[in-house]
Amino acid sequence: MAEKPVKIGIVGFGTVGAGVAKIILEKADTIAAKTGLRLQLACAVDLDTTSQRPVTLPDGILTDDINRLLDDDSISIGLELVGGTTIAKDIQLKMITAGKDVVTANKALLAEYGSELFAAAHKNNRCIAFEASCAGSIPIVSALRTSLAANNIQAMYGILNGTCNYILTNMTEKGADFDTVLKEAQQKGYAEADPTLDINGGDSAHKLAILSSLAFGCQISLDDIYVKGIEAISRDDIRFGGEMGYVLKLLAIGQKDIDNNVWLRVHPSFIKNSDRLASVGGPFNAVSVFGDAAGHLMLYGRGAGMMPTASAVVADIIDVALGNSATTFKSLNLKPPAQCNCLIQKIDTLQSRFYIRLMCKDRPGVIAQWSKVLANNKISISGAIQREGRTPDNTVPVVISTHPSPEKNVAAAVEDMAKLESIGAKPVCIRIVDIPED
Amino acid sequence: MAEKPVKIGIVGFGTVGAGVAKIILEKADTIAAKTGLRLQLACAVDLDTTSQRPVTLPDGILTDDINRLLDDDSISIGLELVGGTTIAKDIQLKMITAGKDVVTANKALLAEYGSELFAAAHKNNRCIAFEASCAGSIPIVSALRTSLAANNIQAMYGILNGTCNYILTNMTEKGADFDTVLKEAQQKGYAEADPTLDINGGDSAHKLAILSSLAFGCQISLDDIYVKGIEAISRDDIRFGGEMGYVLKLLAIGQKDIDNNVWLRVHPSFIKNSDRLASVGGPFNAVSVFGDAAGHLMLYGRGAGMMPTASAVVADIIDVALGNSATTFKSLNLKPPAQCNCLIQKIDTLQSRFYIRLMCKDRPGVIAQWSKVLANNKISISGAIQREGRTPDNTVPVVISTHPSPEKNVAAAVEDMAKLESIGAKPVCIRIVDIPED
Repeated sequence: MAEKPVKIGIVGFGTVGAGVAKIILEKADTIAAKTGLRLQLACAVDLDTTSQRPVTLPDGILTDDINRLLDDDSISIGLELVGGTTIAKDIQLKMITAGKDVVTANKALLAEYGSELFAAAHKNNRCIAFEASCAGSIPIVSALRTSLAANNIQAMYGILNGTCNYILTNMTEKGADFDTVLKEAQQKGYAEADPTLDINGGDSAHKLAILSSLAFGCQISLDDIYVKGIEAISRDDIRFGGEMGYVLKLLAIGQKDIDNNVWLRVHPSFIKNSDRLASVGGPFNAVSVFGDAAGHLMLYGRGAGMMPTASAVVADIIDVALGNSATTFKSLNLKPPAQCNCLIQKIDTLQSRFYIRLMCKDRPGVIAQWSKVLANNKISISGAIQREGRTPDNTVPVVISTHPSPEKNVAAAVEDMAKLESIGAKPVCIRIVDIPED
Repeated sequence: MAEKPVKIGIVGFGTVGAGVAKIILEKADTIAAKTGLRLQLACAVDLDTTSQRPVTLPDGILTDDINRLLDDDSISIGLELVGGTTIAKDIQLKMITAGKDVVTANKALLAEYGSELFAAAHKNNRCIAFEASCAGSIPIVSALRTSLAANNIQAMYGILNGTCNYILTNMTEKGADFDTVLKEAQQKGYAEADPTLDINGGDSAHKLAILSSLAFGCQISLDDIYVKGIEAISRDDIRFGGEMGYVLKLLAIGQKDIDNNVWLRVHPSFIKNSDRLASVGGPFNAVSVFGDAAGHLMLYGRGAGMMPTASAVVADIIDVALGNSATTFKSLNLKPPAQCNCLIQKIDTLQSRFYIRLMCKDRPGVIAQWSKVLANNKISISGAIQREGRTPDNTVPVVISTHPSPEKNVAAAVEDMAKLESIGAKPVCIRIVDIPED
């Protein structure tokens, strides 16, 4: 089979860019033998052309001039690995207009401006490939778009942020507090210097927006997703939940009921310790998808990092160069919610189970008070633990798990309980997510 | 987007065929909305046109005349769901010659005659799509062929046979013996009336041949694979192994060392109970793949059954109809082992750890005897348990785990130990497989 040369330009020569360059430079022969494609790195564009990188480029490849990419008609694929939502958008649009197909790992950009970028690509008969934007090396985009195309996706539960999972895993295993573990994660490179977008759930929401678009066939906007981060999680609640048989994970969840109501949410979630996602530890990612034909499918792997993400980027390069991304991208029929059969719902219409921790003053009649508030709000209790012993402020933790209850009832009950004179600190309220069993 | 009609003929209208028909008939609109393809079932060919099926076809679709498919030029895709290696081969070749692309779930046929069928397809400019042939709904073919294309695959560990996994899971959880659990599996439909090809490891070997061809870029013949089934597994060994921290699984393993030596094998394997594959229970399948860029990727799901397999078949239909299977099939560069850089090795050149159970006569000097045999064969002991108490024949079980040792040394040692007058029954020898940690 004759080899087909494929010239590639990278914009944004950071960690992932260096990983991609490394694969292209070191594995061109292997990839050619496997695919018939001869990948060639034509240029790597970055404002910083002097810093040391973990890969040595041949002379003349690294440049700060993006026109080297845009003006070279022999370059068919442009990689946007800049990240962020400002100049990255402009770069992708310029690549598309210049006739390049785009490969990107930029979840924030796709989540925010995906429909605009996709429209530009369709108009110019180009495609955007974005496997690397969600869950690193895990082929979840391909699974949802292609492998599960025969399925009505009923639900999707993802651990999509390695930083949060690293922090929660370490809080759980070591009984350490959030700040200590975050600092350690930063030292080890599992958390950014500014970890805001990771720990506040924003990054998971970006990925959920992309994946739920594919799963449900709609254009999902970030506003459609309820987001709560892990900043306020205490090791006490992880421990109390653990005693009830639960493990805390930051889950990104998309679910659809038989009436096509869709709920999209990212929040700390207690899941059964026997669930397959419960043992996903450290910086790993995993996604459980439930389809009406396939049943439960779970994918697990490295969700970030130089080489795992580069692996997904190069898979997309190959897919684009073979012409496959173009056909699947053309058939990606993402409609605005109003035109598709999904009815995107706000979280307050959801039924959920809850873990509630109350700090109760240790005296007669307290149980009667908070249990009456729950009863008034039609919330039924599934389990409750009150331990002997007390805190310095003379309160004792009471931990309650509820049966499925409307979100708004629980919110009202928590507000009412916070007002009780017998309750010390503000009640802590964490959702319990019952992932279907196999 | 205008819809593209895709006419499909099924040959072999059994369980999976009925599942595929169900999806095509019930979900044509959804699939059209997602992919732009309007799937149409033109005919379903089966010698049995009278039995009740779990789906009702429109009049005139079910036929016993395969020429309805072969002679109809408007049918672009033929599904071979007959199974087996006799008439199925003829059917696939006829479909290819008649200008149809082929979608199949037939692992036995591809494992045995894959290179002949692939050559015929290439010659006729057709493709064969076979995602459903391995691990049901799990997109492992697509993952190895496309998503991991940038990786040098170092190892692959698969639970690929649901029947064996169901049996071993139940033997483990209930402490039941093989025959009892097999009977129960047959009653519940998890095992065939004749389960030979499942329990002797043959089915797993078929799938390993296909997957390792993709992973290593070689044409793998069944003769290249060492195969041992689960027929002789006793609940005692599952229990003793469990006490040492191991779980027994039938694993299909492909691994490549840095010198490109490749070992392919299917056998009962003790794996650490903390490994992600250890908790894969019942009829589920899972594959752990280790790539040099992606690291550890694990896929888990339903490995068989009407709808999960049909889900994979329809995914392939869509991929073929979009034209993507053709491009990936063309670039599937599977060379005979002599021409690729793999050096397929026989199992006796492998280093492995072993679990060995000896039934020792309970008297002085016995340990000295068997330990001398191991020492003579340069086998180092990693752990050993001898329990108090004895069996009716006055022997006690001694369970040994070894450090990594050459297969041939262990075989020789077991033979020597069997000859010892102090050893009762033939020693039991089961490989311990150390799957890399994340």
